[in-house]
Amino acid sequence: MDTVLKGTGKKVVVSSERPTAIIGERINPTGKKRLAAALNAGELGIIKDEATSQVEAGAHILDVNVGAAGVDEVDLLPKAVRLVLETAEVPLCIDSPNAEALDAALAAHQELNPDGRPLVNSVNGEESSLARVLPLVAKYGTAVIGLCMDDDGIPETPEARLSVARKIVERAESLGIGRDSLIIDTLALTMGADSKAGLITLETIRMVREELGVNIVLGASNASFGLPDRDTINAAFFAMAVQAGATALIMDPAKMGQYVLAADLVMGRDEYAMNYIKAYRRRSK
Amino acid sequence: MDTVLKGTGKKVVVSSERPTAIIGERINPTGKKRLAAALNAGELGIIKDEATSQVEAGAHILDVNVGAAGVDEVDLLPKAVRLVLETAEVPLCIDSPNAEALDAALAAHQELNPDGRPLVNSVNGEESSLARVLPLVAKYGTAVIGLCMDDDGIPETPEARLSVARKIVERAESLGIGRDSLIIDTLALTMGADSKAGLITLETIRMVREELGVNIVLGASNASFGLPDRDTINAAFFAMAVQAGATALIMDPAKMGQYVLAADLVMGRDEYAMNYIKAYRRRSK
Repeated sequence: MDTVLKGTGKKVVVSSERPTAIIGERINPTGKKRLAAALNAGELGIIKDEATSQVEAGAHILDVNVGAAGVDEVDLLPKAVRLVLETAEVPLCIDSPNAEALDAALAAHQELNPDGRPLVNSVNGEESSLARVLPLVAKYGTAVIGLCMDDDGIPETPEARLSVARKIVERAESLGIGRDSLIIDTLALTMGADSKAGLITLETIRMVREELGVNIVLGASNASFGLPDRDTINAAFFAMAVQAGATALIMDPAKMGQYVLAADLVMGRDEYAMNYIKAYRRRSK
Repeated sequence: MDTVLKGTGKKVVVSSERPTAIIGERINPTGKKRLAAALNAGELGIIKDEATSQVEAGAHILDVNVGAAGVDEVDLLPKAVRLVLETAEVPLCIDSPNAEALDAALAAHQELNPDGRPLVNSVNGEESSLARVLPLVAKYGTAVIGLCMDDDGIPETPEARLSVARKIVERAESLGIGRDSLIIDTLALTMGADSKAGLITLETIRMVREELGVNIVLGASNASFGLPDRDTINAAFFAMAVQAGATALIMDPAKMGQYVLAADLVMGRDEYAMNYIKAYRRRSK
């Protein structure tokens, strides 16, 4: 299944037939004091820097999140979206739990880039989320990330996560949003606390792919939380997720991009290893 | 299926229920001029050093290979085996294509470590190999690595590799060597030359596991041959191989061990990440 996203100058097709889509996660103040402080002070230059450096490091899509204590997202998210659109040509992943902020940001995106198609991050299985976010997805004709969680949190079993994914797909379809506009995040719990957490996520990926056929996205921060040498864990987790059927990954591309290109190479999605070699040369400069 | 190997002081069980068995590959002069020169001069001290450092880096099994131009393996392989047995407590993987050298080395192993059980590396589907190596495996009661190749080289398709594996299993069983004494190496061709080479190996692993139920071993040197930043490729390849069903990997443990521990962690084979954390602390000292 092809999920098409458009930036100002680049189109990205998320698909199991193509190299894994790399979503740059660094425009996000969570755990970044400097960015949080800059956002609170209305200093947005750092966002431009992160946009440029992540695209140089191989990001195909840029996540834009300004959620920090004290920040008015309804005001700031559209500004950040404009700034990233002016800086980078790649599609955006507009990231907020606040539907009003999403609406304002999507309006700004439509105004500045009327032919574009961003990804909304995210809707989940909670009634309030479905009711608020999916109408925006329909209104602006975007794609959306659907998280396998609901009012009760993240379900423990693959079957229960699949059932949340199924609910999101059905509700989206009832609003005319096709499956090709949905990318399901199967989520991961912390492997340091539950040794089966990784396996459960891999099994969820396989089950959601098989039953619903949709694209799958994943981050690794939960999976490796609290453990040392997290990049090494994330490398293994990402490679196995790609093998299981993940088609997009959220990450710091400068740190993790090469591992994902290596996983694509093993999966036969990189003829003559050209993407891998090109990225290696870029890093070695 | 459990394949049991014994050193002088350590037992290793190769099994999909346990952490992946790490076979240290560094006692091998291929591509190592210094080791080749030392072996030719009869200076074997370097073998003790490699044995010690690889066990410290996390090797569960030590491969012992002395095949270099000018070396008399029939004389040198038993000496190397004695030396490693005196140095390390872990099981050995006695590595030579020369049946006479294997016989001499296995006799030395039996003499010095009568309760031990090494792994022979390797037999393949060629008639001459089956006829010479399998009787030694039966005679000394060892386990053996079976390579999925025959007189025509490495078959291109998973089906053809499976058929070589099937032939090795059948021939072994006809000599009273059970499947639990066989570890099949599904082999890998170079991904830089054929973008499907990795996928073919992963599919072979799945098919051999499903039909024959045996343990699977793999190296990564062929897969990443000729490409830059090989460790990153090997990391992805190993993680995916473990997910597909590989239960033992041949590698430099200092370079690649942490990636394999990370793969085991994701596969739910490392309760509370204790192996991973312990290895991290050891490396950080």
